Amino acid sequence: MYYWEDFKVGDIASLGERTVDRDEVIAFATAYDPQPFHVDEAAAAQSMYGGLIASGWHTAAMVMRMMVDSYLGRSASLGSPGIDNLRWLKPVRPGDTLKGRRVVLETRASQSRPEMGMVKMRWEVSNQKDELVMTMEGYGMFKRRHAAGAA
Amino acid sequence: MYYWEDFKVGDIASLGERTVDRDEVIAFATAYDPQPFHVDEAAAAQSMYGGLIASGWHTAAMVMRMMVDSYLGRSASLGSPGIDNLRWLKPVRPGDTLKGRRVVLETRASQSRPEMGMVKMRWEVSNQKDELVMTMEGYGMFKRRHAAGAA
Repeated sequence: MYYWEDFKVGDIASLGERTVDRDEVIAFATAYDPQPFHVDEAAAAQSMYGGLIASGWHTAAMVMRMMVDSYLGRSASLGSPGIDNLRWLKPVRPGDTLKGRRVVLETRASQSRPEMGMVKMRWEVSNQKDELVMTMEGYGMFKRRHAAGAA
Repeated sequence: MYYWEDFKVGDIASLGERTVDRDEVIAFATAYDPQPFHVDEAAAAQSMYGGLIASGWHTAAMVMRMMVDSYLGRSASLGSPGIDNLRWLKPVRPGDTLKGRRVVLETRASQSRPEMGMVKMRWEVSNQKDELVMTMEGYGMFKRRHAAGAA
């Protein structure tokens, strides 16, 4: 179980891998981002992307799942207040294999809530050609193993 | 049809409304963000959130759909390179009604691609109590009505 104390500045870890499924690309975008280059194979082929690409929000959601499976699901996570510098650098296409890593940038105890602390991380996601496809930084809130000031 | 030229700095427009569905909150989080406070009613009740809350990525995805329905679906959108300052300010709960607005912050012609331009916007999303629940800024790429330099 990961608590706030278990994240150390400079730690690097893998988020594992995930292959992008065509039907899921279309289903996600049909629900949340029905732009032609995400849902319509023929229109996408004619677009500047030259074929179907995943919604950037779908890519972010897939990366979230990689995070949960690789560490968050075994952590005392309390959620997140936000994300900085989310960048979609290259199209993500059906059949691509995403792989990710996380880097701990900063850790900070909460002033107002002694039972928790904040961890700032950077996530980097690349494809099977080792091209970076998405990067972002974000904040995670975690329970402390021992609340500050506790006996 | 909205082209790049149709976005003017300072323009404010509604994104419409969307009510958050409980089953959808659980389905999205089961697929992409299976943390207890997103998928498990009983565990969520015991958490600091006091009940089920939507994954922040689900909220972002719902807002994306509000964008597509309110303007992007009738635009010459070419996608987006990224998002800045994504903030989840308050929990989003089943039964909440989200409403959003967009503000055009900046427009810029592309130097490298005369047929397109960039629009920077801020999106603000509040709930039925007029509490801001999510804000972000982002960049959209749009076709120009007339490519720069075209006859």
